[in-house]
Amino acid sequence: MSDLKQDALHYHELPKPGKLETGLTKACETQRDLSLAYSPGVAEPVREIANNPEDVYRYTGKGNLVGVISNGTAVLGLGNTGALASKPVMEGKAMLFKRFANIDVFDIEIDCDDTAELIQTIANIAPTFGGINLEDIAAPQCFEVETALKAQLDIPVFHDDQHGTAIVAAAGLMNALELQHKKLELARIVCVGAGAAGIACMNLLMAMGAQKANITLVDSKGVVSTHRTDLNRYKEAFAQNTNKVCLADAMVNADVFFGVSDKDILTVEMLQGMAANPIVFTMANPDPEINPILANKTRDDLIIATGRSDYPNQVNNVLGFPYIFRGALDVRASEINMAMQIAAVHALRKLAHSSVPDEVLDTYGLQELSYGKEYILPKPNDPRLISVIPQAISQAAIESGVARITIKK
Amino acid sequence: MSDLKQDALHYHELPKPGKLETGLTKACETQRDLSLAYSPGVAEPVREIANNPEDVYRYTGKGNLVGVISNGTAVLGLGNTGALASKPVMEGKAMLFKRFANIDVFDIEIDCDDTAELIQTIANIAPTFGGINLEDIAAPQCFEVETALKAQLDIPVFHDDQHGTAIVAAAGLMNALELQHKKLELARIVCVGAGAAGIACMNLLMAMGAQKANITLVDSKGVVSTHRTDLNRYKEAFAQNTNKVCLADAMVNADVFFGVSDKDILTVEMLQGMAANPIVFTMANPDPEINPILANKTRDDLIIATGRSDYPNQVNNVLGFPYIFRGALDVRASEINMAMQIAAVHALRKLAHSSVPDEVLDTYGLQELSYGKEYILPKPNDPRLISVIPQAISQAAIESGVARITIKK
Repeated sequence: MSDLKQDALHYHELPKPGKLETGLTKACETQRDLSLAYSPGVAEPVREIANNPEDVYRYTGKGNLVGVISNGTAVLGLGNTGALASKPVMEGKAMLFKRFANIDVFDIEIDCDDTAELIQTIANIAPTFGGINLEDIAAPQCFEVETALKAQLDIPVFHDDQHGTAIVAAAGLMNALELQHKKLELARIVCVGAGAAGIACMNLLMAMGAQKANITLVDSKGVVSTHRTDLNRYKEAFAQNTNKVCLADAMVNADVFFGVSDKDILTVEMLQGMAANPIVFTMANPDPEINPILANKTRDDLIIATGRSDYPNQVNNVLGFPYIFRGALDVRASEINMAMQIAAVHALRKLAHSSVPDEVLDTYGLQELSYGKEYILPKPNDPRLISVIPQAISQAAIESGVARITIKK
Repeated sequence: MSDLKQDALHYHELPKPGKLETGLTKACETQRDLSLAYSPGVAEPVREIANNPEDVYRYTGKGNLVGVISNGTAVLGLGNTGALASKPVMEGKAMLFKRFANIDVFDIEIDCDDTAELIQTIANIAPTFGGINLEDIAAPQCFEVETALKAQLDIPVFHDDQHGTAIVAAAGLMNALELQHKKLELARIVCVGAGAAGIACMNLLMAMGAQKANITLVDSKGVVSTHRTDLNRYKEAFAQNTNKVCLADAMVNADVFFGVSDKDILTVEMLQGMAANPIVFTMANPDPEINPILANKTRDDLIIATGRSDYPNQVNNVLGFPYIFRGALDVRASEINMAMQIAAVHALRKLAHSSVPDEVLDTYGLQELSYGKEYILPKPNDPRLISVIPQAISQAAIESGVARITIKK
C-alpha cells in the first residue's frame, strides 16, 4: 500500500474514527442552562416557530445548516459503492463546508436507489436544513431528483457534481478564452462525458452565451448525434445532426476540449488537430484525459487545466460550493438560480485577475503568481474567496428576487 | 412575558441562532490534509468499507453518532406542532447527549405523518447513524414506527419517550417500593395516561415482575377495561375485567399512582383512599397530577416523585438516554433489548444507595443527601452516572448476545 493510502486510512481512523463531530454553541452546565435549553424553556421557541415558521431561523441552527446528501450511486471515480461506503466522502465534504465557509453540515447517507422514494425521503427530512447539497448521485437520476426537490422545497437544493463543477470550470474557461483571444459565443467546444458534470457545464456555458451549434457532446459510445437511438433526454437535448462519430472526428479544429470522462482518451494526434491557441480542460480524476506534461510538449499555444492539485490551473469544486451556499444562506435564498450561478462564475473569474496575497504564495513556495496561462483560477486557500464570492451570490439572489432577507446577518 | 420565557428566547437566539454546530476532529489546513480528508485519499476508506461494511465504524463518525428523529406530532406537552417547530427540542436533546455522554447527534425533523412513509424515511437514512433515538412521535404511531425499525435495522432504535421514561421511573419506583416495604410482584399499580410513556412503563414493570392483574390503566375516558370498545391494541393488552370506571374507583387501596397525564387529576380524596405507605409518581409536566406540597400535607407516609427539578425525586429522562446509548454504542449493540433496559434500571437504582459526591451536594446547596424518601434517584449532574451506567448496559448487551464488539473502544 502506498504512503498516501496508508496515511489516508490512519487519518480517518485516529485518534478517533471519522472527521466530524457535533458541538454546543450555548452553555449547558447549570440547572438554569438546562431549563432554558430543554424543558421547560424550550417550549417558548417551539411556540414562536409554530406561530411563525420563519422564526426557525431565529431560534435554531437551520439557517447555517446544510445537508450533504448521497445515496452512494456515483462515489468519486469509484461508481456505485452504496450509501454506507459513501460516508467518508460526505464527511469530507462536510469538513470543506466548515473549513472554508463556517457552514455546519450533517452528512446523510440514504440507502435507496429508487428515484421517487429518494425524492420523498429527502423532501421529508428537509425541515432540518437551511440548504441541501446533493452529492455523488448517478446521472440521469440526479437530474430528476434535483428538479423535483427544487420544485417542492423553499430552501436551496444544489447538486454540486453538476453545478459546482460547472461554475468553477466556467470561471476558468472564461479566463482561458480571454487569454487565448477567443469568444465564448464562437468557441467550438467538445465536451467528453455526458453525465452530471458534463451536461451541467454545457447548460451553464449556454446560459452564458455559448452556442448549442458549436457544442459537441461525446459519451462512451461516441458523438451524441441525432443518428443515435440510445440517448436519454438529457443527452438528446445536445444531439447534433452530424456525421461525426468518434472523439477524433469531433476534435478536428475544436477550440475547447472539456473532459469529465476517463484517463488518456485525448491523444497527441487529437490535440495536434485542434484550432490555434486551444484550451484543454482535462478534469478526469485522479488520472486526466491527457497527461498535462505531454500536452504542453505537444502544443506551446495551449492553456491546460486539470482536476489535480499538482499541476497549475486546478478546477477544484472547493472554490465554489462553500461560498455559493454561504451567499445563499446569508440572505435565506429560496434557491440557487442561474443568475446566482453566473454571478459566482464572474466573481471567481475576476478574483484571478488581481494580485495574489503573500500567504497564498508562501503555501505554494512561489515568489509571484499572476493572471496568465498558468493562473486562470484562484487557489483554494485564498482568503479573499470568503470575502468576495458569497457577497456576489447574495447580491444576485437579492436582485433576482429569491432572497428572503436582504441584509446579511 | 415571564423572565424564563424571555430568557429562553434570548438563549436560543444569541449570540447565534440555535444550540448545535458541527466541528472537525482532524486537521484540515494544508494541501496534504485536504488530500487525505478528501480527494484522492478519501477513496481508501470508501474502498475498505465497500469491502467490509463493519469498517464504517473504523473510518467514520457513525459509531458515535445518534439521530434524534421526530415528526413533531407530540412535542413536549404542546401536541402536534409539526416537524419544523420541533427543531428546538431536538437540538436540546442533542445538547444533552453531548453534554452528558459525549455522543454526537444530528437532529432530524421529518415532515411526514403517514406511518409507513415515516418508517421508510427513517430506514432509508439509517446508514448515517450508529443509533436512532425517536422523539416526540405521538402514540400509537410511535409503537408501530419503533417496532418496524427495530425489525429492519441492525443499529439500536430507542423511543426515549417510551423506554427512557420507563427506565428512569422504574429505577425510582424500585427504590420507593423498597423504602415502603412493598414488593413489585404484589403492588397494586394505577397508571394514568395510556400513551407512549404509560404503556412502556407498564411493560417494563411487568418484565421486572409486576403482575398484570395488579395494574389498572386509566386513559382520558376512564379505566381501561374489557367493557370498553374504543381501545387500540396497545391499551387492549391491559384491559381488566372490572366494574371500575373512573380514576377514583381505581385508586381505592392502590399502592402506586403512576401519572403521565394531566395536572391536578389526582385529588386529595383519592390520595387519602390509597393503601398505607403509598407511592405517587406525578410526572405530568410542567404541572403535576397533584401538587407535591399538598400531597405531602395529606399523607405523611407518602413517597412522591415528580417530573420537576424544583422538588425532590425528579424523574428526569436525562438520567437514562445518554448513558443507555453510550453503553450500546460502546459495544456496537444491534439493539437496546429488555435485558439492557433492566440492567439500566438496576444500575440507576443502586447508584442512589451510595453516598453522593460533594460536587453534587454543592450544586444543590446541600450538606448531605442520602438514600431515603426524598432521594430515590441520582441527581442529573452526578459524575458517577457516566462511569457506572454505560458499563452496565454494555455488559448486558454482551451477555444477551447483541454486542458486535466485546471490548469498549
